[in-house]
Amino acid sequence: MQAWNDYLSQNKDRFLNELLDLLRIPSVSADSKYKNDVARCAEAVKENMLKAGCNTVEICPTAGHPIVYGEKIIDASLPTILVYGHYDVQPADPLELWHSGPFEPVIKDGKIYARGACDDKGQMFMHIKALEVMTKTNTQPCNVKIMIEGEEEVGSTNLGKFLEENVAKLKADIVLISDTSMISMEHPSIESGLRGLAYMEVEVTGPNRDLHSGVYGGAVANPINILAKMIASLHDENNRITIPGFYDKVQELSAAERTELNKAPFDLNEYKAELGIKAELGEKGYTTIERTGIRPTLDVNGIWGGYIGEGAKTVLPSKANAKISMRLVPNQVSGEISDLFKNHFESIAPAGVTVKVTAHHGGEAVVTPTNSPAYQAAAKAIKTTFGKDPIPTRGGGSIPIVALFEKVLGTKSVLLGFGLDNDNIHSPNEKYDVFNYYKGIETIPYFHKYFTESHGK
Amino acid sequence: MQAWNDYLSQNKDRFLNELLDLLRIPSVSADSKYKNDVARCAEAVKENMLKAGCNTVEICPTAGHPIVYGEKIIDASLPTILVYGHYDVQPADPLELWHSGPFEPVIKDGKIYARGACDDKGQMFMHIKALEVMTKTNTQPCNVKIMIEGEEEVGSTNLGKFLEENVAKLKADIVLISDTSMISMEHPSIESGLRGLAYMEVEVTGPNRDLHSGVYGGAVANPINILAKMIASLHDENNRITIPGFYDKVQELSAAERTELNKAPFDLNEYKAELGIKAELGEKGYTTIERTGIRPTLDVNGIWGGYIGEGAKTVLPSKANAKISMRLVPNQVSGEISDLFKNHFESIAPAGVTVKVTAHHGGEAVVTPTNSPAYQAAAKAIKTTFGKDPIPTRGGGSIPIVALFEKVLGTKSVLLGFGLDNDNIHSPNEKYDVFNYYKGIETIPYFHKYFTESHGK
Repeated sequence: MQAWNDYLSQNKDRFLNELLDLLRIPSVSADSKYKNDVARCAEAVKENMLKAGCNTVEICPTAGHPIVYGEKIIDASLPTILVYGHYDVQPADPLELWHSGPFEPVIKDGKIYARGACDDKGQMFMHIKALEVMTKTNTQPCNVKIMIEGEEEVGSTNLGKFLEENVAKLKADIVLISDTSMISMEHPSIESGLRGLAYMEVEVTGPNRDLHSGVYGGAVANPINILAKMIASLHDENNRITIPGFYDKVQELSAAERTELNKAPFDLNEYKAELGIKAELGEKGYTTIERTGIRPTLDVNGIWGGYIGEGAKTVLPSKANAKISMRLVPNQVSGEISDLFKNHFESIAPAGVTVKVTAHHGGEAVVTPTNSPAYQAAAKAIKTTFGKDPIPTRGGGSIPIVALFEKVLGTKSVLLGFGLDNDNIHSPNEKYDVFNYYKGIETIPYFHKYFTESHGK
Repeated sequence: MQAWNDYLSQNKDRFLNELLDLLRIPSVSADSKYKNDVARCAEAVKENMLKAGCNTVEICPTAGHPIVYGEKIIDASLPTILVYGHYDVQPADPLELWHSGPFEPVIKDGKIYARGACDDKGQMFMHIKALEVMTKTNTQPCNVKIMIEGEEEVGSTNLGKFLEENVAKLKADIVLISDTSMISMEHPSIESGLRGLAYMEVEVTGPNRDLHSGVYGGAVANPINILAKMIASLHDENNRITIPGFYDKVQELSAAERTELNKAPFDLNEYKAELGIKAELGEKGYTTIERTGIRPTLDVNGIWGGYIGEGAKTVLPSKANAKISMRLVPNQVSGEISDLFKNHFESIAPAGVTVKVTAHHGGEAVVTPTNSPAYQAAAKAIKTTFGKDPIPTRGGGSIPIVALFEKVLGTKSVLLGFGLDNDNIHSPNEKYDVFNYYKGIETIPYFHKYFTESHGK
């Protein structure tokens, strides 16, 4: 559509600057000291939605951070697309590894560097700007609802309740989400599945106080040594997870499905070179694509205990802690896996220590069938703007709310992501290519058009 | 000696207040931000030595923190005692576990609570005050040299060079040190041996940056999981250390020696209750007294990696780190053990990571024969002031400089410690009993007297 291209061209710089403004707000949902910034960010999202032509926009309070909801209803007989995204971001640390301030966005070599540039401010903002493109050119094909939450990075704790209380308001034919990545701009792809998540925190306590390792070392269980041993025991020599029952419900793919999956362009040497590693490591019997797409995993995300300052301290600490998360695949149930983990972890603790296991957030794995109208509309939109068919992939990450939408609203989702795996999301120097940002704004209206057409409108 | 008791009685309160003043100076040698406080503490030690009657006191600069040296020579034909102690202290963290400020000493139930109260400000200060008692009552039995360093808690890095450059100045018949503990005031004891130390720091690096654990988890070696596995492998199922060659030089005690050692009063149930643990844990085949006295050990003193803040972050970190120390027994050589550790730790790293191993400080184990004149003088001094014979014990901690004194100066040491195992040295709420402080000041002059007499003077 010429009108869309023209409007985008005329407003390019402003669209970029408005994103940079949003990236300047440190909306870190995990850390309570950013509470006011998160609230400020919600206000900024609201303003941009109003500017995009929404009839109504409201900031909906929750027990945690607020949800921004807006809509532009044009005709009740037309289909409705519910856009979902999040305006909160991951913590920025370790700060010392950033080349520029995480909340002082800079553009370098065509890339926007900032926390949230890709995940998910840059991506969700494309939808707000795409809506503006459609409303301002009077070409909006269907009804649009936009829900942007502020707690995705902390497990969308209060989203479930919000959905349950607003089933009628949120009624839609499809949920459209841009919070995933493509293989590359040369190999556009759509994630047809995502892994689930169970995120645990463990605390191992030995003696009732920190001790001198000379006086007590060798006679009293050291919680760090014990924690290391317990963590080590969670994988066997084939890198399979040893928690009893962990694999019971795992959906195994057929040989044909695995062959299809492994057809995606992937170069292991490039992958290793890009990560600076000499060898990959994972579950025996599976390729890297399978290990990150269709197999469940267990990773320690953080560990701490004892003296971690400069120099040396001969302490035998009272406690050691770790954050441990598991990525789940279809049919595994997050709550069940959390329980299996907790029971197993408590059972392997030796008598000299006590163990406390708590569950952070979790979510279920999802699969979007490639023969669904929504997937087909997304594929056609990409074909239109990229000039080639997208490859269906299975993403390793988790967007637990996708399963939630299906459960509470009865609505399927489509994952139209424009990120790249090297965007450093959750890492220092997160970036998002300016090209991808504009490409997203260009592609999204076509999804609206083709999805509406697939409904015979 | 009545004169000593009288002088001590008359100056009790001042002796205590002067110690409290010293404890108010945060002389943390491991952390460079306390550099000026460490220097300030050296000045305070100097002032107290002058007040004690030293002829000369000098603050001797080193490449690190200064050494305070003073002497009171009365007659070249008399024996000379070289007192050694340290005015630097361990870092105070974790601060939140202290009941009162670590550098705001308080006296509660007859105990002085402060970082350094026992280790070693409280104990080394007894010698300065005991010297004052002897000089002010004109009863000093022999020559006294006092050397108080500021780097004991960071491995006495610059002490070796100082000793080498001052062999003549430091010439003495015995080195007298109070930096160890007794079983209890009811069971006075003298440590006749100490363990050595090798302190290492390890860094495991996986990918060249922090990654999203969903996108890469399961395919890329997670340095925390790997570090845990490597640490876990350092002990076998009998809690013996698996580093090849580690036990090769360990001095095994005879059955008779082990029986003698285990005669020291010790109640395992009380020990466990006091530490709040259900079970002890250590090398199979040895008692708790043996595990902490005559067996070498390996403890992780600190570990860190990934996200350790509030909430959850799904990161697969680039690096994980640990501080790992080994306590050594007679005949094990610290440098050799460091090398064995380094070679072994590097050899067990899987291909997906790189490992960097560096050595912090170390030191050799020592044994003081109980039939030596110095040990006998110490035992007699304790008999005089406690009314009972001290029990010889083997300490689990390390004072590497004891081996250094023997090597460089050719001088043996005697360990006349007045601390208690529950003094929380290196832990929050370090304390030193006021009773022990005064008991030390009371006992020390008798050591001077009996040691002099054992030389036929």
